[in-house]
Amino acid sequence: MADSALDALLITHLPNVRYLCGFTGSAGILVISHRTAVFLTDGRYELQASHEVQSARVVIARGPALIAAAKIAARSKSIGIEADHLSVASRKIVASVLPKGSRLKNTSGSVESLRVIKDSEELAFIRQAVDFGSDLLPVAITAITPGARETEVAAEIEYAARKRGAEAMSFETIVAAGERSALPHGVASSATIPANGYVVMDFGVILHGYCSDMTRTVHCGAASREERSLYQAVLSSQLAGIEACKPGTTLADVDAAARSELKRTRLDRYFTHSTGHGVGLEIHEPPRLAKGQDEVLQPGMVVTIEPGIYLAGQCGIRIEDVVVVTDGGHEVLTRARKELIEI
Amino acid sequence: MADSALDALLITHLPNVRYLCGFTGSAGILVISHRTAVFLTDGRYELQASHEVQSARVVIARGPALIAAAKIAARSKSIGIEADHLSVASRKIVASVLPKGSRLKNTSGSVESLRVIKDSEELAFIRQAVDFGSDLLPVAITAITPGARETEVAAEIEYAARKRGAEAMSFETIVAAGERSALPHGVASSATIPANGYVVMDFGVILHGYCSDMTRTVHCGAASREERSLYQAVLSSQLAGIEACKPGTTLADVDAAARSELKRTRLDRYFTHSTGHGVGLEIHEPPRLAKGQDEVLQPGMVVTIEPGIYLAGQCGIRIEDVVVVTDGGHEVLTRARKELIEI
Repeated sequence: MADSALDALLITHLPNVRYLCGFTGSAGILVISHRTAVFLTDGRYELQASHEVQSARVVIARGPALIAAAKIAARSKSIGIEADHLSVASRKIVASVLPKGSRLKNTSGSVESLRVIKDSEELAFIRQAVDFGSDLLPVAITAITPGARETEVAAEIEYAARKRGAEAMSFETIVAAGERSALPHGVASSATIPANGYVVMDFGVILHGYCSDMTRTVHCGAASREERSLYQAVLSSQLAGIEACKPGTTLADVDAAARSELKRTRLDRYFTHSTGHGVGLEIHEPPRLAKGQDEVLQPGMVVTIEPGIYLAGQCGIRIEDVVVVTDGGHEVLTRARKELIEI
Repeated sequence: MADSALDALLITHLPNVRYLCGFTGSAGILVISHRTAVFLTDGRYELQASHEVQSARVVIARGPALIAAAKIAARSKSIGIEADHLSVASRKIVASVLPKGSRLKNTSGSVESLRVIKDSEELAFIRQAVDFGSDLLPVAITAITPGARETEVAAEIEYAARKRGAEAMSFETIVAAGERSALPHGVASSATIPANGYVVMDFGVILHGYCSDMTRTVHCGAASREERSLYQAVLSSQLAGIEACKPGTTLADVDAAARSELKRTRLDRYFTHSTGHGVGLEIHEPPRLAKGQDEVLQPGMVVTIEPGIYLAGQCGIRIEDVVVVTDGGHEVLTRARKELIEI
């Protein structure tokens, strides 16, 4: 705040609110100024806030919490808002209660930049979530049989996750079989698993608020020689991406390492997304491992490495691990095997 | 658009995008002008967009879809944005690519106001989702046994939902037992079901993109006379809310009907949230049944009626149905029984 000449910061993005004061509910705002921190929510969360919120005074707003928060922030002159998360309409509401001397300043990533480097407690939580996720792969593989619906496979993964104590899945489970594997984001559908073809599974769980994220691609029936070489190319790309992870390397260089490995077999044009993303309280959070991202990796960053290729009408393959950057390089947290599995 | 003197509308809120053009993915923008409709997404969704999008030309953006969308919108002079959903930062990005003659205008609820009245296909989908949800109650009741964790009960509900073909749960399943039932939004935790006490369950599924939403409160062990009377008060309140649902009644009047029923037993001060909300492509959408909402109910509106009382340190009770407003009054879609169940 001192750096950006702000007297107060209005934090409305819930993962940021949770990161700073511990509140896990679905409605709450944090106002931070030089002197004080105030957390505002509504009557539904009175009990929960009193249990969870730390380092901030809790206020239960009678009307809209945003207006109550803005009124507290209005005691300051220069008030930062989270421009990436606050809606245009909400900004107008905040502005409408400010006195003439106060003004709003757009900020971007001020809390996210703190969240990028995980502390030891966060790393322990992420490690636990990723371990938990890895242990779900055998469940998924058992569920994959020709004729089963993709949603049934997702059901088995999610059921095991819940029974074992996951707070939630970290995103909609992807099970994409046969031609559907060529959808980079093929959420489980009523389509059935074919007798012969690839199945992409991408899933994660939340433990202590922290997300895991993992993709494995298996083959139903025997893979042809061509299918095997496609798989091998993606695996080589993924290993090259992981190998590039170390302090001082730019995010773009990690992306380029994975991408250039695919270029060797001219498959890079089928790799249509970025190489990875940060993971923590959110399933997608900074940093982004993509072209043009000049920031460097630092110890404590946790990222996914997930190259994939997508051949429309034919098949898709993606392999994804969670990797933590260490002083000496990196550690792959995901323990599940990556050699091609034929079912 | 003619009413609001707009030449183009930039639709970024995904449920609105889906409503207008059918795209179900997680990244896409629709630009509508007098002459044309263009849907923009990224490479991950190329195949999916070609299958799903109707009544709009599909463009796969090479860079950020928002910039590509803004450039198309920039051909118009007066461009509406969805102020409730577009972030301050995204608005800046859009503004930065506009020529001098063009300007942005904040709009609010322009697509939502269409979505408030469900057509017959939407009603059929919602009916199917609500039926599906009602059928999950026996599963939940079987899972509730003293000593079971709340998350285990949630696991059984969600597993049955998935195995039967639900696309997803419509929100984080609430299972709140014993003292935790006094949390109006008590997402299933590792707490265990007590031998004696109330258990609130609030859950929903998504089918064809449409949400169901249902709450039932059951009692483990025999309920005391006082506990029974609390339950009866909430049930009377809920029935009064439902009874008030008919075309021409204001949203506030429905809320008041449920609230004043609780006032008779002086329990209204424990009813700390609004009486209900619209439900459709989103789990919470307009209208809102609350004090001060002067809009009137119209045939085709689908709302929840869900009064609850929350006695901190003691217990909570909530009962929720989905109700459709009809020409003649209303129809309760939720079929599950509402008399007090002791387990």
